[in-house]
Amino acid sequence: MTTPDERLVRILPTPPAPARPDSPIQGVLLDGDIAYVSGVVAFHGSERPAPGKVGREITVADARIQAGLAAANGLHRLAAAIGSLENVEQMLKLTVFVNATEDLVEQPEVAHGASDVLLEVLGARGRHARSAIGCASLPLGAPVEVEMIARVRP
Amino acid sequence: MTTPDERLVRILPTPPAPARPDSPIQGVLLDGDIAYVSGVVAFHGSERPAPGKVGREITVADARIQAGLAAANGLHRLAAAIGSLENVEQMLKLTVFVNATEDLVEQPEVAHGASDVLLEVLGARGRHARSAIGCASLPLGAPVEVEMIARVRP
Amino acid sequence: MTTPDERLVRILPTPPAPARPDSPIQGVLLDGDIAYVSGVVAFHGSERPAPGKVGREITVADARIQAGLAAANGLHRLAAAIGSLENVEQMLKLTVFVNATEDLVEQPEVAHGASDVLLEVLGARGRHARSAIGCASLPLGAPVEVEMIARVRP
Repeated sequence: MTTPDERLVRILPTPPAPARPDSPIQGVLLDGDIAYVSGVVAFHGSERPAPGKVGREITVADARIQAGLAAANGLHRLAAAIGSLENVEQMLKLTVFVNATEDLVEQPEVAHGASDVLLEVLGARGRHARSAIGCASLPLGAPVEVEMIARVRP
Repeated sequence: MTTPDERLVRILPTPPAPARPDSPIQGVLLDGDIAYVSGVVAFHGSERPAPGKVGREITVADARIQAGLAAANGLHRLAAAIGSLENVEQMLKLTVFVNATEDLVEQPEVAHGASDVLLEVLGARGRHARSAIGCASLPLGAPVEVEMIARVRP
Repeated sequence: MTTPDERLVRILPTPPAPARPDSPIQGVLLDGDIAYVSGVVAFHGSERPAPGKVGREITVADARIQAGLAAANGLHRLAAAIGSLENVEQMLKLTVFVNATEDLVEQPEVAHGASDVLLEVLGARGRHARSAIGCASLPLGAPVEVEMIARVRP
């Protein structure tokens, strides 16, 4: 029997680099029992994601992996903010932004990569409402960005 | 005097097909008295919306209708989750994603189609904050996707 | 020692024109102690923003200013809804929509213009989670649109 924190580390061992001290934004804003997790891309530690547009340089299958890694980064930040993912009572809302061509129609399939990580790490408490859309471009040229809202034990 | 549920059925008789049992996401995530309604497009029952970009294949007038149908689909899902739209205390936030050309400037006019349905069905309890943006592409190639947050009687 | 309201007026003296009485949406939807501020662009009073795409007609530096003005417009609307910005307990979430070319990667730098205004006006209570994305197009052709969620004294 593993814990959510163990399952997260198995998926992505290295947490993303912490926000720079001069950053005007919070990686996670805690408001009582609601945690707002800022949009995050698929960093591997401090390494940037391979940039590109899904449907052109990036395949749907690769983007799905990127979405999962972005979600794992968000969970690492959330864990750091609340001590342990044991304190997540329920994931509430996931938004998946896909850096997409005009022709792409598989935004949901890409987004499943993020949803699957939430469910694998958090079990039933990882279930969530979701929107997935295609964007003209994303920070760093990343193929996928995800943001989350969760209910947590304050 | 009609009920909200009756007014919804008058606008769109058929609820959207339920999410597939293997879907990792919830059409509606209930968190106490807050309901997060996942992004939804203008299905008619199980029939997919005509795909296309607003400003090219799809006119603003047609997109406005699609936005209204997408909102009606979201309300059908919300009604199924909370038993009746009588249990909606207040619509809070609507986000309207428009599959738009670079030149489109009428995102608000398209979004009014969704807002009008919320007001027609829910009356003053349908008033809401809103954002409307133009997207590079959307799931299934749909011209419009809407998501909602509502306060409900739990 | 200045107040938040004074600091806002120093940044942007003129509040945006109020929503038209026939508008189906609320500029600010108050739900108890949560305020949802609708997406807003960089109006100067009733004057529309210079339209254009960031990365083509609009530079990142100019877009950053536009983002700050859009945030200031949102704060004006929030102040009108709750009487005074003294009643903001905590900004929670900011979403910055950038009307961007496919090549743009500086969405965060543009968004910093909005974040900086929140911090300058509200101090530590202006800190927030944030997402920033590139859009295909925005209402009125505006280069930037921002939306906010805040906790307020009801």
